[in-house]
Amino acid sequence: MEIKSYMTRIGQQAREAASLMAKADTATKNRALLFIAQAIRREVALLRAANLKDLDIAKDNGLEAALLDRLTLSDKAIETMATGLEQIASLDDPIGAISNLKLLPSGIQVGQMRVPLGVIGIIYEARPNVTVDAAGLCIKSGNATILRGGSEAIHCNQVLAGLVREGLAKAGLPEQAVQVVETTDRTAVGELITMTEYVDVIVPRGGKGLIERLMRESKIPMIKHLDGICHIYIDDSADLDKAVEIGFNAKCQRYGTCNTMETLLVSENVAADVLPLLATRYRDEEVELRCDEKAFQILGAYPYLAKASEEDWQTEYLAPILAVRVVSGLDEAIAHINRYSSKHTDAIITEDYSHSLRFLREVDSSSVMINASTRFADGFEYGLGAEIGISNDKLHARGPVGLEGLTSLKYVVFGHGEIRK
Amino acid sequence: MEIKSYMTRIGQQAREAASLMAKADTATKNRALLFIAQAIRREVALLRAANLKDLDIAKDNGLEAALLDRLTLSDKAIETMATGLEQIASLDDPIGAISNLKLLPSGIQVGQMRVPLGVIGIIYEARPNVTVDAAGLCIKSGNATILRGGSEAIHCNQVLAGLVREGLAKAGLPEQAVQVVETTDRTAVGELITMTEYVDVIVPRGGKGLIERLMRESKIPMIKHLDGICHIYIDDSADLDKAVEIGFNAKCQRYGTCNTMETLLVSENVAADVLPLLATRYRDEEVELRCDEKAFQILGAYPYLAKASEEDWQTEYLAPILAVRVVSGLDEAIAHINRYSSKHTDAIITEDYSHSLRFLREVDSSSVMINASTRFADGFEYGLGAEIGISNDKLHARGPVGLEGLTSLKYVVFGHGEIRK
Repeated sequence: MEIKSYMTRIGQQAREAASLMAKADTATKNRALLFIAQAIRREVALLRAANLKDLDIAKDNGLEAALLDRLTLSDKAIETMATGLEQIASLDDPIGAISNLKLLPSGIQVGQMRVPLGVIGIIYEARPNVTVDAAGLCIKSGNATILRGGSEAIHCNQVLAGLVREGLAKAGLPEQAVQVVETTDRTAVGELITMTEYVDVIVPRGGKGLIERLMRESKIPMIKHLDGICHIYIDDSADLDKAVEIGFNAKCQRYGTCNTMETLLVSENVAADVLPLLATRYRDEEVELRCDEKAFQILGAYPYLAKASEEDWQTEYLAPILAVRVVSGLDEAIAHINRYSSKHTDAIITEDYSHSLRFLREVDSSSVMINASTRFADGFEYGLGAEIGISNDKLHARGPVGLEGLTSLKYVVFGHGEIRK
Repeated sequence: MEIKSYMTRIGQQAREAASLMAKADTATKNRALLFIAQAIRREVALLRAANLKDLDIAKDNGLEAALLDRLTLSDKAIETMATGLEQIASLDDPIGAISNLKLLPSGIQVGQMRVPLGVIGIIYEARPNVTVDAAGLCIKSGNATILRGGSEAIHCNQVLAGLVREGLAKAGLPEQAVQVVETTDRTAVGELITMTEYVDVIVPRGGKGLIERLMRESKIPMIKHLDGICHIYIDDSADLDKAVEIGFNAKCQRYGTCNTMETLLVSENVAADVLPLLATRYRDEEVELRCDEKAFQILGAYPYLAKASEEDWQTEYLAPILAVRVVSGLDEAIAHINRYSSKHTDAIITEDYSHSLRFLREVDSSSVMINASTRFADGFEYGLGAEIGISNDKLHARGPVGLEGLTSLKYVVFGHGEIRK
């Protein structure tokens, strides 16, 4: 009950702050971002100390090495947070832009104005840098935000929250525009995702378990994706050098990201040529190849070879493992992708003009690529400047979501006294 | 259980049809629309006979006059359906358009391609013309649709469904792209709104009760609005002639529509001038004016005068009743609107440049107007060509929703062999 009233108060304050943020001008929002960056640079020692406290507790609790690594705030990571805010300040303000303004037969002029979403709840895990990135994106897009970070980073997040408040106040913006939930009680998440009156959108940035829970329990629209089962299809007309470079990069540049390739499809006309070339590269990284019958025959001598089962086409490995299938051509590749893809990112390697256009049009994923690594599916790489997450949903934001994805459009009508006849 | 498996089959067929519709070319989709229009004109007698059957049953069931009127298919209404399809055929095809194409530092080119939503479930009441309008919009936007019309129109809708199937087949498109649910069993609606696997969006077009039920029970995103509590604010700098014409039109042109004005706000500087002028017009239509204290004083002699209570600011009358409040000026007007408006459509009457821009920016509704009647909030009037409904939600579609509102964007990447470093 205490948590409920605590969260309700946070929600009410956020709603009030949101209406002030919606009309804040660009210069004021940018000033707040730069003040926060300054405060972060000034308080490196304080931040490191809070982070050490978090790390000590995490070690006592036996947190695994990978998570400790993500929790650690080095001097460099702190500087990156400050630079990130300066970058957001340098981006164009999406709010207030009017597009599609038309003069209509009745005499009215109708266009669409970009406006903030309102209050955005963000739920994330042990990475303190998300606190600052998310705060920065929400401030610039004129939204208020409620941040619920992982309990492991609570001390560090409290300090960051104080610095954000300081920057907002100094710029003359409401301190409650960015609120960090101060309790580690898990029921606070349950409140956040059901406060339909106070929260307009939820952005869950965390494991599949968190997102599945939210999909069941939340009544608030989400900007989210569940899986990243990304495909590359090497077409019969592919430039094999590009195919090998991209096929290696998409799998091996980083294993744990959602835009990493998990299944490789190869046209039967080029499979015997390109698979052995790729295998030479994968061998150095000890990538296990789980192959269908035809690929298995071609790659017979490969040291980390296995047979694929139906389950492999549906698995996001996030590891040095790749499912490989030989297909008869473009049609079978598109059919496989539209069946098994998580609709995150899929790419074709081809020099055939018609094939490239058919792939673009017919693959139903949030990013579809020609001759490029799936690893490019990212807000920074797409020129959005910053990223709040990646959405697989077809409604609203789809693909990497930056400033614009945190906004909506309303119609605006300029009349001259027109009435409807 | 039978209904469940019946609806599941419909869902599966829709999903299959959707992937074919997504790649159908514009000419084919237009041909289907024109074939359906032809078939409707050919079968006027059949349609009238089916409609008479529906009307007989409805009369036996004691349906009220207004509903009987909406259920009736006159020769003119049938011709309007056919013309509507021809209009949709003449609109630009939104699918496949690529916007925001940029060349990025890595060498990749990134843009956004407009694609269909997939399967759209539409739930509506006794108006047979919705069957044809909705089918037309979904075909043109490359979607498949499942239509659940009111049981009162079942015979007529069955005939229309047959004509739509005929047109689709004749154009070489899948007949299952438009399916009309053939049972009047109410559990079919429960199935439709929870088949997350087969249905991507629900469009409820019906009373508040239906929409409230769907908001509680549906797990599928909706394009919807609940209320239309629309405001007009007459500013102190308003042109009073415009104010009177617009204030009369917005209330009296039609009482039962969601974009009808329900509350009139007037600046205290002009209230004594403009309210009596408006009252002269409202008197002819016997409009009841529910006034706050100040307006009540000014309008003392008006024959249909009442005092407003708090409830009046929250009521969508859909009747010749208007709530009237005198405010101190722009700030109080915006505050009142952002508190009580259903965020559908709100308008300011003003000749003041700064006031007009502040109203546009600060009123958080899906349509915001200057010097025009709220009755213009409509897909046809906004130049969308056709309308599937009006959305009050900030995510995705907002305001009148036409062809484009039935689509989504995916990112497309054109590379030349780029890999991520």
